[in-house]
Amino acid sequence: MTGLLSPASVSGALRVGFDVGGTKIDAVVVSDAGEVVLRARRPTGWGADAVVTAVSETAETFAAELGISTSGFASIGIGIPGQAAADQRSITHAVNLGIDYLDLAAAIEPRLGTRVRTENDVKAAALGAAALHGGTGTIAYLNLGTGVAAGFVTDGVLWRGARGTAGEVGHVSIDPRGPECRCGQTGCIEMFVGGGALARRWGRPVDHAVRDIFDAADDGDAEAIGIRDGFVFGVASAIRLITLSVDPDFTVLGGGVTGLGDRMLTRVVAELERGASTSAFLRSLELTAHLEVLPAGSPVAALGAALVGAQAHQQEVTVHG
Amino acid sequence: MTGLLSPASVSGALRVGFDVGGTKIDAVVVSDAGEVVLRARRPTGWGADAVVTAVSETAETFAAELGISTSGFASIGIGIPGQAAADQRSITHAVNLGIDYLDLAAAIEPRLGTRVRTENDVKAAALGAAALHGGTGTIAYLNLGTGVAAGFVTDGVLWRGARGTAGEVGHVSIDPRGPECRCGQTGCIEMFVGGGALARRWGRPVDHAVRDIFDAADDGDAEAIGIRDGFVFGVASAIRLITLSVDPDFTVLGGGVTGLGDRMLTRVVAELERGASTSAFLRSLELTAHLEVLPAGSPVAALGAALVGAQAHQQEVTVHG
Repeated sequence: MTGLLSPASVSGALRVGFDVGGTKIDAVVVSDAGEVVLRARRPTGWGADAVVTAVSETAETFAAELGISTSGFASIGIGIPGQAAADQRSITHAVNLGIDYLDLAAAIEPRLGTRVRTENDVKAAALGAAALHGGTGTIAYLNLGTGVAAGFVTDGVLWRGARGTAGEVGHVSIDPRGPECRCGQTGCIEMFVGGGALARRWGRPVDHAVRDIFDAADDGDAEAIGIRDGFVFGVASAIRLITLSVDPDFTVLGGGVTGLGDRMLTRVVAELERGASTSAFLRSLELTAHLEVLPAGSPVAALGAALVGAQAHQQEVTVHG
Repeated sequence: MTGLLSPASVSGALRVGFDVGGTKIDAVVVSDAGEVVLRARRPTGWGADAVVTAVSETAETFAAELGISTSGFASIGIGIPGQAAADQRSITHAVNLGIDYLDLAAAIEPRLGTRVRTENDVKAAALGAAALHGGTGTIAYLNLGTGVAAGFVTDGVLWRGARGTAGEVGHVSIDPRGPECRCGQTGCIEMFVGGGALARRWGRPVDHAVRDIFDAADDGDAEAIGIRDGFVFGVASAIRLITLSVDPDFTVLGGGVTGLGDRMLTRVVAELERGASTSAFLRSLELTAHLEVLPAGSPVAALGAALVGAQAHQQEVTVHG
């Protein structure tokens, strides 16, 4: 656990946000002013009981550290790699966690005595990225992780779409002769960019397939160079299609793959500039001037999850009060 | 000129909307209730003076028909194939009309004595399509004409994006080995679908290239079948990527190419269903259940342009009043 501010110096509502990933949980306590007061990370475990226990215990440890009870938290928000129900209490299809359906709010609220709300992890991270970026207008958050998806936030409000599939750009096909995707299409952006797909294509038993591919490409391995070129093509394609559909003020890249930092960004920028060099139209969009990468280790998804709890609360006040 | 309602039966504000195309102008007078009171069509002419004259004369003819002066119209909205300035008074890059820059409001307001506002023609048509469709939520209007672009309307409000390029899906590449686009990219959707691109590829001196291609394909012409297959692939790709980025409640197809009617729609639906047959993910989106085609000859762009004038008015009242 890391205390980033002295708890004694914090006044006003405190909200907890969780980013529940396939392997680890990232958790933060956020002040009314949006400052991260405490942060903790721990392994996730597998299945519904493990997730409920890990979230509850982490919140209890936060509360003890702050000298309050868990009912003193204004809300708890949980970002999770699955589909959140419309009431933001339950989640479905969290396959990487071994969860088909789980009413997280029903499981956690009685124990902790405070409001619990859930959100898809990429959508939560988009809220966090927009908050970190600041300002008004529309922020697109493009998550480059095991999977690939985006979230769009306008003036602090998430754009969900009619079916909740807004931002599912990882499953836009960019090459009819491309690799087959598990979703049943061919040439999906996720097949070129997603850490899961690249690990399967690379086929070597390494912890970080994308980093290994970049290393091997630097050493001149032809297969690795081909996969790396496809990765850069896929990321640039996603950025272009986001601009030509939603047209955000800014696109923020995040997710595990961005841990490659400048090794990735330099090539993506070069690919965007190559495209712009032959197209006055693309040049006019100034894509590279409206692009940024989150710093490694940024708690963007947990921070965004804390905002999910806050937003759910505000909406209910508006609707019922 | 067609009188659709008896002018004597109309009360309240009357607004004029113009759809200024490359070859013809479609104009309507719309009542407060959204009913089309009068409609007229005439050739456009070439260049700024011809457009200003045609719009002014049409409005004057409408006014005479209604027994009022043109200053009695609450607003005049003009949809035009170019880029509207932020204040919606001038337009740029209307290349099909031979206009690089034109302050339409400055040119027309003094003569007609009423407020004039401009909008890109596809964005105006999107407003019209959303009004015709009715209801709340987000409507995507996908224009299949000489060019290909979309407009998104949520609860009656147009989504413009940060640079005004929201909905420019015609220039999303869907095939890195596809035809070269005039925009400098390869494999843009517009190269597969746009009437201009298809006429160039077909290369025969016919009035309606897409219809001629469909006719020849029906007769077994191999080249025509290839182009028609590409057209269907492009339209289906546009519908899928709109759903996987913006995720509208409904997608409405319009534009000159939709004059093919069921000959086109049947094949697009079959392509969407072919994709869904191999992908549970695509199947879950129920794309064909949320798709409709505007009836041939629908004055959707002129109707939407009339709404542009109304919206500009409302915004100014809010801001200044």
